[in-house]
Amino acid sequence: MALNMRQVINPKKAEQLVELILWINSRGWSPATSTNYSFKNSENPLTITISQSGIDKSKFSASNLMLIDGDGKPLQDFSHLKSSAETYLHTVLYQENPEVQVILHTHSVYATILSQKYLSEGQLLLENYEVLKGLGDIKTHEVSVPIPIFQNTQDIATLSEEFRALYRKMPDMQGYLIAGHGLYTWGKSFEIAKRQLEVLEFLLECEWRKMLF
Amino acid sequence: MALNMRQVINPKKAEQLVELILWINSRGWSPATSTNYSFKNSENPLTITISQSGIDKSKFSASNLMLIDGDGKPLQDFSHLKSSAETYLHTVLYQENPEVQVILHTHSVYATILSQKYLSEGQLLLENYEVLKGLGDIKTHEVSVPIPIFQNTQDIATLSEEFRALYRKMPDMQGYLIAGHGLYTWGKSFEIAKRQLEVLEFLLECEWRKMLF
Amino acid sequence: MALNMRQVINPKKAEQLVELILWINSRGWSPATSTNYSFKNSENPLTITISQSGIDKSKFSASNLMLIDGDGKPLQDFSHLKSSAETYLHTVLYQENPEVQVILHTHSVYATILSQKYLSEGQLLLENYEVLKGLGDIKTHEVSVPIPIFQNTQDIATLSEEFRALYRKMPDMQGYLIAGHGLYTWGKSFEIAKRQLEVLEFLLECEWRKMLF
Amino acid sequence: MALNMRQVINPKKAEQLVELILWINSRGWSPATSTNYSFKNSENPLTITISQSGIDKSKFSASNLMLIDGDGKPLQDFSHLKSSAETYLHTVLYQENPEVQVILHTHSVYATILSQKYLSEGQLLLENYEVLKGLGDIKTHEVSVPIPIFQNTQDIATLSEEFRALYRKMPDMQGYLIAGHGLYTWGKSFEIAKRQLEVLEFLLECEWRKMLF
Repeated sequence: MALNMRQVINPKKAEQLVELILWINSRGWSPATSTNYSFKNSENPLTITISQSGIDKSKFSASNLMLIDGDGKPLQDFSHLKSSAETYLHTVLYQENPEVQVILHTHSVYATILSQKYLSEGQLLLENYEVLKGLGDIKTHEVSVPIPIFQNTQDIATLSEEFRALYRKMPDMQGYLIAGHGLYTWGKSFEIAKRQLEVLEFLLECEWRKMLF
Repeated sequence: MALNMRQVINPKKAEQLVELILWINSRGWSPATSTNYSFKNSENPLTITISQSGIDKSKFSASNLMLIDGDGKPLQDFSHLKSSAETYLHTVLYQENPEVQVILHTHSVYATILSQKYLSEGQLLLENYEVLKGLGDIKTHEVSVPIPIFQNTQDIATLSEEFRALYRKMPDMQGYLIAGHGLYTWGKSFEIAKRQLEVLEFLLECEWRKMLF
Repeated sequence: MALNMRQVINPKKAEQLVELILWINSRGWSPATSTNYSFKNSENPLTITISQSGIDKSKFSASNLMLIDGDGKPLQDFSHLKSSAETYLHTVLYQENPEVQVILHTHSVYATILSQKYLSEGQLLLENYEVLKGLGDIKTHEVSVPIPIFQNTQDIATLSEEFRALYRKMPDMQGYLIAGHGLYTWGKSFEIAKRQLEVLEFLLECEWRKMLF
Repeated sequence: MALNMRQVINPKKAEQLVELILWINSRGWSPATSTNYSFKNSENPLTITISQSGIDKSKFSASNLMLIDGDGKPLQDFSHLKSSAETYLHTVLYQENPEVQVILHTHSVYATILSQKYLSEGQLLLENYEVLKGLGDIKTHEVSVPIPIFQNTQDIATLSEEFRALYRKMPDMQGYLIAGHGLYTWGKSFEIAKRQLEVLEFLLECEWRKMLF
């Protein structure tokens, strides 16, 4: 079976992810050692490169990445390492949507507090912003984009299955929030995942500032 | 006809525009791949250097520029490229005012949300700020500067004609907003266009913060 | 008379001022071409090095400085240059207090809007902050520091005499605001002037944020 | 006695502290010459490396550090220098908890104003944030973390004994605030102290922004 073959981290993609992680940190979206990131390393068998747990993202380097299989288990050479506590939130999405190549989980102030505020409504609705055209295949600002919000939990296995169930009902989901915790978004490429992230973090800030109106 | 002659992008101006675009990005005024920028490349025939559509502005370089004619049509060597979706908002202004050399369209949080808030009034009025002296030929803070606000639309051709009509009535217009979308401003030089932009973005932030009073 | 001697800008002090101006710009306290800065160049005769009018502070260099006499008149080699429109606000303070070596005028968002808000009270009162110990000879947070606010005007000659009159009554003044315009502060050295500035800008931000309480 | 032996500042730790101080300054958490920092230099006898008083943290270098004994007295080669006015708040904690290796005192806008607001309640309670897992041994967001708030005073000797008494009752204290003054936090290593600081400053910002809800 292929998994017995020695798997290595794709160096070019690792470099792209590290660059993106450092940029995200410079924006203040990954305080302390929070947040986690991954890309699909190989298709068949499904292997995933993901950030190790507990790393200060201001000093993140390719040596802080590790390889897991499609179920979240560390591959042979990485079995001494601990991947992010939220690994299953990555693996489930790669399992569900073969087009996803990159997953980003950030932890900004706005994502933290707006997800708390709107938890009882189950979602944050983004409407009538030009920059929504930066999400998925959206072609107009005249659109309603729901961002689902999950209750926070330390039981990530259960949360990942809740996410799977919702994602099957909402295949055009652009990202989701976990209350008091942060944002997940993704894309078919690093460029797209970064764009999704910028749109969503920008709009979270807009939503907060409009509370003063 | 002159347009049959090979036209090239003015390299010195391209460098100035790229420097300005990267500075704007560092201020957070061009999230995702939003915003667009241009300068007048030649007077007669009118040709315009404009940013291509869909570029991440944090990585913008001169290779992301292209040449269009005064009606927004890509020139010969650039016909395989797509200029910004808002190209007509640039061309109309160059047609109307031969003094305009540079046009900047930014997409800050404050421009996005204040344009939504004041859309029903049709404008945002800026008054009694010293820094208004940085706009046009204004010599005193005792002045009222209206910033018109247009409803957002994906029909840029129509919007550009609405802008043309208003600009003819308001030849001293310093900039305008599109609701939920952003700011346009311009100048007779890069220095002036940048100064106009700084004044307006600064005052949008002031206006938002004063809502807490 | 000494003024007939060729006067040159002190190169070491010019370097210190330029470094400070660029730092101030990086903080966002000098938008567009606003703000002005000076240091005492020689004591007897009194000559002052001051920033020229209309310079983009993000690109400020020593070549954007000029020499004036104690009354604000450009010295011989600089007579073709225009000093800041607010030159008299500098010269009056050097005339009144021989200990002042450096004067800084910034234009932050908080200074702009809080000076508008508190203009009718004539001052902003700063109290009970530990960082007030960074001002002048203050040794405790249990102190009230009034920051006078002047009405904005384009008649700087008159404003400078209003300032002179108030300064004589308040010799321990730590800085002052001009409504919708910005902050002036100063010190016996570059280090002290910078510290005064940081304290005051920090506390202006505190005062604004406390409006949400 | 060991204190008679020549003591030197640990150069590797000095470098780590300087790097951290400059990073803290870049975040805007050490305005003017506020804030102070230390690490345990030797265990037995207890010696402490601490920042000198009155240094601009944007220019902090290892030459701005000094050595004190466990009671806050400058060691032989440093007797001409003045350590931070808040030295006793450092020494008491090293005396009380031998595991503490690094102490950080920052002075952000949010720490300054929230400590004023919640002083009458004696503490700020942090609850239901995922990032609380970055503090101490906390394993879940379902936790209440009290951050005690002390009245500000210039009598640091007395304040340090008040802190000692409270710390004995709250050995799992994660940090504390002094009203209108700032935050203290610490750790068993530079990495942990930095993480504690990032968590607490992030959550202070969250708490302030949630006041708009």
